[in-house]
Formats: sequence, structure tokens, C-alpha cells
Amino acid sequence: MTAIAPSKLALVPFVSVENMMRIIKEIGIEKLLCELAGYIEEDFKRWQTFDKTPRVAAHSKEGVIELMPTSDGELYGFKYVNGHPKNQSEGFQTVTAFGVLSNVSNGYPVLFTEMTILTALRTAATSAVVAKYLAPGNAKTMALIGNGAQCEFQAFAFKKICDIETVRLYDVDPVATKKTAENLAKVGLNVISCSTAKDAVEGADIITTCTADKKYATILTDDMVRPGVHVNAIGGDCPGKTELDKEILLRSDVFVEYTPQTRIEGDIQQLDENFPVTEMWQVMTGQAVGRCSAEQITVFDGVGFATEDFSALRYIKQQLEVTGHFTMLDMLADPEDPRDLFGMVQRVIADEPLMAEVV
Amino acid sequence: MTAIAPSKLALVPFVSVENMMRIIKEIGIEKLLCELAGYIEEDFKRWQTFDKTPRVAAHSKEGVIELMPTSDGELYGFKYVNGHPKNQSEGFQTVTAFGVLSNVSNGYPVLFTEMTILTALRTAATSAVVAKYLAPGNAKTMALIGNGAQCEFQAFAFKKICDIETVRLYDVDPVATKKTAENLAKVGLNVISCSTAKDAVEGADIITTCTADKKYATILTDDMVRPGVHVNAIGGDCPGKTELDKEILLRSDVFVEYTPQTRIEGDIQQLDENFPVTEMWQVMTGQAVGRCSAEQITVFDGVGFATEDFSALRYIKQQLEVTGHFTMLDMLADPEDPRDLFGMVQRVIADEPLMAEVV
Repeated sequence: MTAIAPSKLALVPFVSVENMMRIIKEIGIEKLLCELAGYIEEDFKRWQTFDKTPRVAAHSKEGVIELMPTSDGELYGFKYVNGHPKNQSEGFQTVTAFGVLSNVSNGYPVLFTEMTILTALRTAATSAVVAKYLAPGNAKTMALIGNGAQCEFQAFAFKKICDIETVRLYDVDPVATKKTAENLAKVGLNVISCSTAKDAVEGADIITTCTADKKYATILTDDMVRPGVHVNAIGGDCPGKTELDKEILLRSDVFVEYTPQTRIEGDIQQLDENFPVTEMWQVMTGQAVGRCSAEQITVFDGVGFATEDFSALRYIKQQLEVTGHFTMLDMLADPEDPRDLFGMVQRVIADEPLMAEVV
Repeated sequence: MTAIAPSKLALVPFVSVENMMRIIKEIGIEKLLCELAGYIEEDFKRWQTFDKTPRVAAHSKEGVIELMPTSDGELYGFKYVNGHPKNQSEGFQTVTAFGVLSNVSNGYPVLFTEMTILTALRTAATSAVVAKYLAPGNAKTMALIGNGAQCEFQAFAFKKICDIETVRLYDVDPVATKKTAENLAKVGLNVISCSTAKDAVEGADIITTCTADKKYATILTDDMVRPGVHVNAIGGDCPGKTELDKEILLRSDVFVEYTPQTRIEGDIQQLDENFPVTEMWQVMTGQAVGRCSAEQITVFDGVGFATEDFSALRYIKQQLEVTGHFTMLDMLADPEDPRDLFGMVQRVIADEPLMAEVV
């Protein structure tokens, strides 16, 4: 077959895992997290611009595969993401992801990127942005229950964005806690490894739950949450997957990303569909109040929403031009005459040279 | 940064446009179309196995971007596809697409492929499979109204699968008809170029409409459809986008892929939501009757459904092992300890060597 030189229109910038790491290295993970948080907050503040829908989930007994699309009218983005709690024991990631950003005007993709690492970063950045509005003033200590792949990203983001100095760790598996403690000591956090969840929440201003089991779990019981605490509950993100005793929710003010999705997936799936919640965009734009007293318990029932991935895709797209860390992928057929796809295929398989513009 | 050798788990087989053409060339487009049609029919016949949902569409004034997921419980597939009728005049494809096939058990992708060409093939194969059940016996002549990128694929599939010998072409743009006539003469069809749609349908046993405008159009008026004809209406596939005078539908038996999606997108969007239709899987499994008389008008209100893309993905996945025409893409982060994503990122940006298994 004649060697084909794809035209420029056929090529889509691709960020591999290796190039994502090059981007992180070049920008610096601290700067990147802060800039990403800025993009996420900016997009929450223009909430009305987005075309929003609950993500499309395919559930199986082992896990879930989800598509998370949204659009701001100029760009369209979606993420593919899976969640399989049992993967870890088989040597696979619990969560892997990739995503695409496209031009709304012609439907052509402008970015295809790994998002396993990027999802870990955006999830942590989102929690930290939310905590700026909800955590008690001068919070310095955070409990982290669940020491899996997301845990350190949370700690790191809260250190950078919310000035957390001390983390108190707990996991049912002490090996996971040991791994986390080692990683977090290296980035300058005071680390206290605890042997029970009850011990971990002792004295914490913020409690982050990021466990993976797809079941109705009670990671936090009612007695573990004292007045004034901010609960950053991000592990309950699927129908049938919760982390909090519902009594905690009943005496808290609960904040969510996008209510229709959180009612299905979040910890509030345990409660009546009329249970009052506040969407974070309302708080960020000043249309609703976040924390209003020192005694108030605030709960961020975070499940992850498509706009956060859109923000991350938009941010990485910007970094392509700055860093150059991407390759071009021959993803789109591009016949010289756009109506002549059949002719293009016929000519190629007949060994006739293609007339497509050379890159 | 240390050069990273991604582990096997990080890599996903990728079929570029060039490799898709190599696959088509190696298998032969005729054999490939027939085999693909076999996969599509097989999946229609096990309809109950699939997790089905109408596709998720993001509409804009210029077009639409859609995600089309489905799963048979073992494999999960989705396609990204756009439809932008004005693209063609700007040198872009009206429709471009790519897709992914994954393992349901762990959520890891096993195939990432171009689907612009593959969609053209699967759309044509689907129409031809449907026509085997609905077209009048001994049909030899097909009218093709709309001579864009999909047109020749339709003609070619009907030649191979339904023994069509003669095509009668019409498009509002004579240049499109000329292109199509040249392409189809080369593949051994008798080609008659017509100057009106009315002329094109004269004596045709099958009428295929495959126009692109996103509007309520009347490509076929009631007087153009004589008793006994099979109408293969595939251009009306979007809310606000239809091709047939509704009077034609009212005196026909209408067949669809997946009713909830076709009610929104198909030509039957013009009719009451109780208008009776038959799903093609029912016909293919013998649970409903297809064509039952020589006078009956049958209409396939085809919009394209996710199972057809799933069949195409499943087929291409099979061909990877046979043809070897793919490359491996570093799409998934794969830390040695699956819970230590943060540690992996930290080590890479600190220039420490990765311990990941070498491919």
C-alpha cells in the first residue's frame, strides 16, 4: 500500500501518560495543581454556560464504566472513566481515564489525552477549591480515611490550596497507610498514622473520606463528627456506594456539584429526594452561603462532575502550546473532497497515491 | 526526565486511519462488508444481552456531537461521532468518529480506533442487513437520494448483500452526483444519474435517502413512493432532521433499531409517540414479521444505534490479531503498586527510574 501522509485535518494532538508526566514535571506539580484549581473554580463560576447532564454509567457487578460529557458552547469535552474496586488486588488501577476536547463548531477533536493522572489531580483540586469556601477558618489538620491512589493527591492539594500542615491517616490495610505516610512525609506534611478511623478524626478540622468499596459502607459514624468540622466525602460516588452514616448528613449542611447526578450517586442517595442541598457554583458566585458559623458541620458530597474534567482538558490544551509535550495522532479520515470518503478508500486500497495535503 | 518504558498494562491497541485502510485492503472491502454485516446481524439477534440507552447528544446550531455507549456484559463499547452538515463546504467531513472497546470486568480499554471509515461501512452494512428482511423479492434497482460521503458505501453494500445491479442517483448538487457516478461505475454497478428526485425513484425497488441537512426536509413526497417499495431512510437521524413526508410513514410499515432513540431522532419524530413501529431485532429473530406482501411499503427509519458500532468494534478487535495493523498507545498510567499513583508521578518528576515492567 502506498505510504499515506495524513493531512493536518486528520491529526489530533495526543498526550500520552509519558507526556502528561513531562507536562507535570515542566510546570511543577504544585503550580499545576494551583492553576488547575483556578480553571475549575472559573468554570464553576460560569455554571450557566454549560450543557449539563448526569454522567452515563454502565454498571456491572465488578464496577462501573462512565462517560462524562459537557460543553460550554465553544468547546465540548468528555471523559471515559472506570471504577473497579477489585482491580487493585489484581494489579490494575481502580480508576483509569482518558478524555477528548472538541470544537463545537465542527465536531473535530482538538485534544486526546490520558486522564488517569489528570483525574487524580482534578479530583484533589476540586476538593480543595470547595474547602476554601466550606472548611473552618485556620484549619491545619486533615484526617484522610482511605489511603488508596487518590489519597496523597488530596493531601497535597489541601496543603497547597488550604494550608493544611498535618494529616492523620487511616486505612483498613496498614500497607496502604505506610505507602501514603512515606509519600506525604516527602512533600513536607506532618504525618500521623492511626490504627482506627476514630483515632484519625481526633482533632481534625477537615475529614476526607476516599475509600473505594462499591457498597453501602459507614466509614464515618455519627459520633465521629464533632461540630465545626468540614467533611470532604468523595469516595461515595456510585449508586450503592456510600461512606457516611446518614445521621451525619441530617445534622449538616450538604453541598454538591450537580444535584441530579449526586442524588443518584452521592451519599445523599440514602436520603429523601427533597433533602435540601446547595450547589457549589451558587456558593462560589455568592448566590448562596457556604460556612456561616463555627459550629456548623459542612459536608461536600463530591462525586466528580463533567465540568471539572472539562476544566482539566481546557487547562491541558493550553499547556500543549507552552510545553510541546504531545504527539499527533492519525485519528480522522480526511479525503481531499470531504464527500469522497469512498473514493479515498478505493484509491488507497488500489495503491493509487493520495493527494492529501502533506503535513 | 528518565525515559519511561510503559508496562504492558499501560498500552492500548490503536487503529489509525492508515491502519484501518490497511485492514480494509488486506481483508478486501467486499469480504469485510459481508463479515461486518454478519457481526451486526448476530448482535441484533442477541438484542436482550445489551445494555441499551439512547445516545447522548450535544446539539449546537451547527451540528451535533454524540456519545453512543453499549455493553453486552463482557465488553463495553462506545463511539464518539459528530454530524455537521456545513462542514463539507469548509473542507471538513460532515461525520467523523472514533471508538473504544473495553473489558467490563476491569474497565481497561482493549481497542481505540478511528471510526470515520468504520461508521461509513457499518451504516451501509446495517441498511443492507435490514433490507434482506424488508426489501421486495428480486429487487435489482435502488434510488440513492443524497450523494454525499455515505452514498457509495450504501450502494456497494446493497450490491454485495442484496444483489442490487442498478443505482439511480440524485443530489441537489450535480457535482456530488458526478463524483458518486464515477466511483460506482468502477465497482461494477449500472449507474443512472438523474436530474430530479422524482426521476431517480422511477422504477426503483428500494429508495435510499441519505441527505445531510439538519432540518425538517421533504426529500420524498407522498406521490413518489409506489406500493411495494422499500424505503431505506437513513439521513433523518437527529431532532429537527427528517427526510420523509409524513404521509408516506402513515401508509407504510415502519421498522426501527431502538424505539426510544428513533422516536427522538428519526423520521417518526413527526408522528404521535404511539405510532406503531417494529424493532428490527424482532424481525431478525422471527418474533415479528418483516415484509408480508408485494404491495406493502416498508420504511427503515434508520438513525444508527450503539450496538452496530459495538459490532464494528468487536469485528475490528478480531482483525487485529489476524492482520497486525495497529500500534500500541501509552494511554493508561500503570504504577507498580496500583495504589501508588502519586509515588509514581513523584518518582518520575524527580528523575528516579521507573520500575515498571518493560514491554
